Parts: sequence; C-alpha cells; structure tokens
Amino acid sequence: MNKVRVGIIGMGNMGKYHADYLLQNKVSRCELTAVASSTPSKLEKYKALKTFPSGEELIRSGAVDAVLIATPHYSHTTLGVEAFKAGLHVMVEKPISVHKADCERLIAAAKAKPNLVFGAMFQLRTEPRYKKLKQLIETGELGQIVRINWIITDWFRTEAYYASGGWRATWKGEGGGALLNQCPHQIDLLQWLVGMPACIRAFCQFGRYHNIEVEDNVTVFMEYPNGATGVFITSTGEAPGTNRFEIAGDRGKIVLESGKMTFTRNEVSMRDFSKTAKTGFARPDVWNVEIPLENAPAQHATIMQNFVDAILDGSALFVPGAEGINSVEIANASLYSTWTGKTVDLPLDGAAYEAALQERIRESRFEKKVVQTSDEDFARSFTKG
Amino acid sequence: MNKVRVGIIGMGNMGKYHADYLLQNKVSRCELTAVASSTPSKLEKYKALKTFPSGEELIRSGAVDAVLIATPHYSHTTLGVEAFKAGLHVMVEKPISVHKADCERLIAAAKAKPNLVFGAMFQLRTEPRYKKLKQLIETGELGQIVRINWIITDWFRTEAYYASGGWRATWKGEGGGALLNQCPHQIDLLQWLVGMPACIRAFCQFGRYHNIEVEDNVTVFMEYPNGATGVFITSTGEAPGTNRFEIAGDRGKIVLESGKMTFTRNEVSMRDFSKTAKTGFARPDVWNVEIPLENAPAQHATIMQNFVDAILDGSALFVPGAEGINSVEIANASLYSTWTGKTVDLPLDGAAYEAALQERIRESRFEKKVVQTSDEDFARSFTKG
Repeated sequence: MNKVRVGIIGMGNMGKYHADYLLQNKVSRCELTAVASSTPSKLEKYKALKTFPSGEELIRSGAVDAVLIATPHYSHTTLGVEAFKAGLHVMVEKPISVHKADCERLIAAAKAKPNLVFGAMFQLRTEPRYKKLKQLIETGELGQIVRINWIITDWFRTEAYYASGGWRATWKGEGGGALLNQCPHQIDLLQWLVGMPACIRAFCQFGRYHNIEVEDNVTVFMEYPNGATGVFITSTGEAPGTNRFEIAGDRGKIVLESGKMTFTRNEVSMRDFSKTAKTGFARPDVWNVEIPLENAPAQHATIMQNFVDAILDGSALFVPGAEGINSVEIANASLYSTWTGKTVDLPLDGAAYEAALQERIRESRFEKKVVQTSDEDFARSFTKG
Repeated sequence: MNKVRVGIIGMGNMGKYHADYLLQNKVSRCELTAVASSTPSKLEKYKALKTFPSGEELIRSGAVDAVLIATPHYSHTTLGVEAFKAGLHVMVEKPISVHKADCERLIAAAKAKPNLVFGAMFQLRTEPRYKKLKQLIETGELGQIVRINWIITDWFRTEAYYASGGWRATWKGEGGGALLNQCPHQIDLLQWLVGMPACIRAFCQFGRYHNIEVEDNVTVFMEYPNGATGVFITSTGEAPGTNRFEIAGDRGKIVLESGKMTFTRNEVSMRDFSKTAKTGFARPDVWNVEIPLENAPAQHATIMQNFVDAILDGSALFVPGAEGINSVEIANASLYSTWTGKTVDLPLDGAAYEAALQERIRESRFEKKVVQTSDEDFARSFTKG
C-alpha cells in the first residue's frame, strides 16, 4: 500500500472541515474516497466521491482503508468498534467517547487489532506553544510543578448554537456540555503536560446561561499525586471570556495568554531558597523571559499526515487514540463530583459513571426546539487553541 | 476635643510602621502619645512617649483617647473590648479577630458604646484601582457579575519568616495562616466589591511548603446568591507568584494585574446578545479599554486620618470596623470546609467554628523553633496591594 484511502463519517461542521483540506491534497499519500452522512443534503457536495447514508455502510463498503469519525459523540465508540472489526484504521474526533466505559470498549477493539492504527484528533498537541511548554516541563526548566490554573471561558455560544442540532447539549445526544464538546482539547493538553490528577472536586452548573440541560459553566479543582493543585474553569456563557493558562513550578512560572508565552524564571529553586534565606520577606531573583512562538498553520492536516505516515511507514503517533481516555475521565469525574457533591478519586469507576449518566438520560424531561441557523465560519471556533 | 491622642498597642512590624508616620505628623489633629509592648526592647525607641508593658495598662492610663491595636490576632478582640469599656475609640489591624464569634464579641462591645468610633485598618480600600472597580460595578458599567477569579500567590515567605515569632503560623498563636495573616485585605476587598458568597468549598493545604501547622496554600471555590462563581487562590510558598484579579460581568471583563486595569467592554449585554443572535458562534463586539490609575501614596495614614476625622467631625468611616467580620467569616468558612470536607453555607455557625478551632489548638503537637532574623524592609510585604 502506498496510499491510504480515507472515508469520513459524519459531515457536520468538523467532517466538512476535514473533507476540505483532504480534497485540497494537504495530506500526502492520502485520498478521500468516501463520505457518509444520514442527512442526504450533506452529501450533495461530495458526489464525485462514494457516498453512504450511514457509517456502517461506509465501513463495510471496501472503499476505504481508514475512517475519520466525526459524528456526534456517542457513536464514536460504536463506529470505531465496527471499523476495527472490519480491519480499518481509525482516526476519531474528540472526545474519543462520551464516557470512560465506552473509551475502554473502543480501546479494547483497537487492542484486538494491533496492526491497525488508532489515532485521536487532538490537534492542539501540534501547536508550538504547547510543545514548548511540554519541553520546558520535561527538561526540568520549570522544576517540579506546584500549581496550574487554566481559565478558558472564551467558548461563548449563543442560544442559536444550541438550537441548531437536536442532539446538542442533551444527556442523550451529547452526554455533556462544555466539558465534552468545547474543552476536550484543553483537558487533553493538561493531562499530557502534567499527568492525571489524584482526585477531583468540581462544580458544574447546568443550563446556567442557556436553555440546555448539560453544563455550560464549570469550575474544577484538582489535586495531583505530588500535592500540586490545579483549577480549570470553563464556560460557554461568558463574553469576551478568557483563555489564560498558568503553570507554576519550583523554578518559575509560565503564562500562556493571547498566544504569548511568558516565563518568569527563578534563578534558583524557590524551595531551596525558602529553606536557606536569612530574612523573612526575601525572594529569589528572577528573569522575565518572553519565548517567541508561531502558530501551527494546519493542525488537523498535521495530525492526519502523521496518521497516514503511521499506517504506511509505522511512524509513531503524535496522539495515540488510547490516550483519549484521559480527557474523558477528567470530564466524567468532574460531572460525577458535581452530581454526588463529593471529591472523586481517580481512577474513576467507569461503570458507576455510566450508570449515573444513563440515569440522567432516563430522567431527562428536556424538550429541545431545533432552529436552523445560517452557515457560518465554524473554523473560528477552534483556531484560538 | 480638637486633637486625638492615640496609643499604639503592639510594637511589631505593623506597630512600628504606624508609629513612624504618626510621629512624622502625616495625620493631622492626631498625636501619638503612648505605645505598649510586652517586649521592653521594642519600647526603647519611644522614650519620648508614654510607654507601657501591656495594652491593658495603656488603656487604663488616661493618656489616650483612641487606641490602634496591632498585636497578634487573638488579642484584637480582648484589647478591643477593654478599650471600648474604657471609653476609647478603637482602630484595629486586620483581621479584626481570629474567628467569627470573637468578631461578634468585639462588635457587640462597640455597639454598646455608640459614641465611640470603631475602625478597621483595611487600607487597600483607599487604592484608586479598587475604588474605580467598585464604581464600575456600582454604576452598572460591568453589568451583573457572573464570575470572579483572584490568584494572589505572591505572598512568598521563607522559613526564616515563620521561625521569627513563636506565635506565628500556629493555631494557638495566630489561628490560621495565609487566610488570616496575608490575605485579609484581598478577602475584604472581594466582599466589599461583590458581596458575600452563599456558600464556600475550600481546599487548604497545611504546612505544604513550610514547617508550620496552618495553611500555606489555599484554593477557595465560592458560589454567590445570584449563581455567580468565584475562585480565590493564595499561597505563601510560591515564587514569583501571581497577583491577578479578574471579574467578569454581563457587560465585559476587568483584569487587575501588575497595577494595571484592563476593561474589555461588551458593547451590548452578553446575555441579551446570546438570546437574539442568529448564528451560533457570533459574539458581542468589544472595546479594549485601559484605565490609567495611580497608586495611593499613604494608604495607612489615609485610613488613620479618616478615623481621626470621624472622631472629631463625625465623618463617615471608609471602613467601619464591623465590616471586618466578613473577611474573617470567609477565611473561617474556608478552613471549616477543608476540615469537614464539605461545602459550607453562609452565614457560618460561629460557635461551631470556634469549637473546631479550639480542638486544633488542644490537639496541636507542633513545636516551634524560634530563630531571630535581621531587621528588613517590612513595608515591601504590603505595598503591592
């Protein structure tokens, strides 16, 4: 095989976006040969390709070597499992599943086919600022991490957004709100950069800003195995909102905001300094360091290229699909903590969470009124990272 | 009376600081006539004044019309009550007491003498940036407040600081750590600006960074009666630390950081916009507004001048002493939430908290090793606001 035939399942905002750059040959040795959607009008644009009314039919068609799954969240698991069974490589949009138990099902299906490549679309890991941050952590430049704080409240969504799809922002259709739809990337970056917390206590507000039943305002407190503390705040109700990530370590503090990385570097370890200083109010001398960085121009295409290279050449994946379970687990634990009013120790009990989510689905009395919105520039929604 | 004779009780860092500007006549119609300290060496500088080995003796001396209490925290209550009984006006350093029940005792003593003035040294309320922020909130420029976030982790203190006094950072001597000693000003500003939260869930870490028994790293989650959420983070173990206060409202967002105030102003209400927008990803147009502000040059002297004016002319106090109960209640509730592992509804049960604190004191096995530190520029510790 010297080329990978890809099929996209789900031609909503993300599916269309992926199709565009693939049709423009932005990913070498990759050919978009098929698309699937249950909405016939969404297939019209793609008549030059093979089109299917369902993902299952695309998977069984023999027209593709790999699928890119960009459907509503729940079907990531079912379609992914089907695709692996059919011997296809799988790239799945975030979140890889709605809840931990489903992630485990998907990962098990992938593990059963070790020759198939399983990737996840966490394209922000290709952004130079996050790669640099990871490097500064891994090389010890920042010292042991003591505290993190990410305020990402610039996910403003209007009522029209939520009214645009019946599945949106319901327990049954989407299985969550800001944590499952808007924030998987940031939560993935968090765990990629500093690992998984030992426990979580979260405070989700459901339909605070919008006429929805899932969370649209969230505050998460995390404690890490080494005692480090973290706060993650998100909202889809706030404008202008903030996107500011601060990470403090023994050797200083890094702030990412407005695309700028600022490193206030302690000349010496703050803990050593504290122990040896002769006076009470002294503090380590610092350097104010600004680290110039550019934006990655085509994050999604980069992830897809890496996926294709992994299939054809055995290259290492930037984002192995199995790692997608971590952001789901943090999101699930945050909801579970809110529902139970308790601190949740990780690892989360996936079965208990699934049961709690099913209960929300069963008890839902929410009636969704769907209103068509005009087409708009969807890319605005993820280019800020 | 055309002049107020003031006595300072407690000649530690703060007492000396107050004495300096009073002796320089920075407060008109106010004369420092007496000081009290149980440490004889701390009185030597003030031989031109009347000196007393205890606050009680100063209070009974007849040498003063008013006292400024700058002793370790617990005695704020006992000395304040004594002073009111003796017919003296009272200015008390922060916190006004260690716990809510003591605050109520002190406030009751003040109320029993309605002709005496009771002030509290929350001098940051005189800072132009906080006055401006209060004005922007009260005039509705910021709209209804939806979220606040204050990260104030630039209270770095060395081991030498904690070793410098036997009372420091013990349950018995100080009754708390960062929340009671370093942060009362910021907590006071919070409640002054946005009112009291309806409930608090906090995560205090005790002696995480230092060899102390009280909290030196704190994360507080607050929910307000209108559903607004807040996070307050502080630490005395982190360098360089952060001091960043963000407050989001329906009409925009204000950030105070590094002495700079930035107002991102929504041209229209974000909630109205959300309800009426025809597309999903639209957001209100904004103005980026930078509001120039200067630092107040002599905050403490300004508060003392206001106190003297209140005594002589009946002027309104900038900070009525009774308002000091609010920052104590938030600090107490944060500790109580940590101890119980639960969300604490306000108002806090002051008696329950006092009992819980007494239990910590009884059970304390902490042995403090006191080491003398050299004199240093203490003013550095509060000039940043």
